[in-house]
Amino acid sequence: MNRARRFHSDEIGFLEKQFRTNLINALSGFKSVQLCGTVNRKKLSNLAIFNSTVHIGANPPLLGIILRPPSVPRHTLQNILDTGFFTLNHVHKYILQQAHQCAARYEQDVSEFGAVGLSEEYSGTIPAPYVKESLIKIGMSFTEIHEIKANGTQLVVGKIEEITVPTHCLGDDGYLDLHRAGSLAIAGLDGYHSTEKLVRLSYARPGSTPEALQGFTA
Amino acid sequence: MNRARRFHSDEIGFLEKQFRTNLINALSGFKSVQLCGTVNRKKLSNLAIFNSTVHIGANPPLLGIILRPPSVPRHTLQNILDTGFFTLNHVHKYILQQAHQCAARYEQDVSEFGAVGLSEEYSGTIPAPYVKESLIKIGMSFTEIHEIKANGTQLVVGKIEEITVPTHCLGDDGYLDLHRAGSLAIAGLDGYHSTEKLVRLSYARPGSTPEALQGFTA
Repeated sequence: MNRARRFHSDEIGFLEKQFRTNLINALSGFKSVQLCGTVNRKKLSNLAIFNSTVHIGANPPLLGIILRPPSVPRHTLQNILDTGFFTLNHVHKYILQQAHQCAARYEQDVSEFGAVGLSEEYSGTIPAPYVKESLIKIGMSFTEIHEIKANGTQLVVGKIEEITVPTHCLGDDGYLDLHRAGSLAIAGLDGYHSTEKLVRLSYARPGSTPEALQGFTA
Repeated sequence: MNRARRFHSDEIGFLEKQFRTNLINALSGFKSVQLCGTVNRKKLSNLAIFNSTVHIGANPPLLGIILRPPSVPRHTLQNILDTGFFTLNHVHKYILQQAHQCAARYEQDVSEFGAVGLSEEYSGTIPAPYVKESLIKIGMSFTEIHEIKANGTQLVVGKIEEITVPTHCLGDDGYLDLHRAGSLAIAGLDGYHSTEKLVRLSYARPGSTPEALQGFTA
């Protein structure tokens, strides 16, 4: 029998700051690891690491990202609002150190691409830079923004304009094999994980039991 | 050299529906797998599977979930708005089939708990039911809702009122070991994955290189 530790709301507010930050950041479960590429009005590139990409819808194709409150300058948010475009680039283990380093607070006139050693790539379709070394790359146009009243964070929603994926990771039914592409998952602020395939389960219907879909192997 | 497949915006709209749904749902990267427990005004319980939990903030402690447009009855959304409370329960592999089955469209007077074979658990602190078999359980109070104009989906934001975690998964620095707790990650609509620890990286600062934190082992 596993022992459990319970925290109540009044106690959570009095936890030591780093302890609380680590604990709360893990509760949303495993998160994606993506690099968001933008340019400012002077065409200087910016690259930021995000763990908050959410699926909003498939038709029209929409994704959202959560950005922290703009109490200090947030280059990514400003660039998205100024130019209307951004990219999301999946992170695999061979670019993990560089991706993590993008979280450092560089000066405004420094591009994280050069600072961490990743390469800008432009498709010609949108003005925002992709990460050349990434395998799954998504070009986005800005559609709307919502401010979370409770703490001032921003939900930025964008429409998918362009998708680049490795051919060998794309199934006949459109299933994109993120494990094969080496996309990582993160727990909390800094706990990076690779994945192991468990199972694809069939569409759930009342009165039946989900079955393993065939062909879901490494 | 890996070959890449590129989809442009005009092509995406003309993809076969299931292909597009599978592809777009994978682009947000690995997602968490959580069960959302609620009750309606008559105290009938409801359990729904979500892959869209996002971290909103640590202080105050906030999480968000994305819910599909309320064009057909959405019991979870209605229950949250009616009662003001919900729970989020991490899914591990021993309850995966039951969790996945919660996506089936049961009638309004059927509780998914009984239908799929999971147990309701009440802490006494909030009126929403936890999943007894889950190891990481979060009690939430509703704080705000935002409608995404682009497609009518809803972002529901809640405050963390109560946290239950396995003692052996909680580090001295508050790091919660999701891998050890067996929390799963999902790719797309139905591709469930377990995880392997890769590395915890130190806080990123300009001019230094992220280092592996000690003690991050299985």
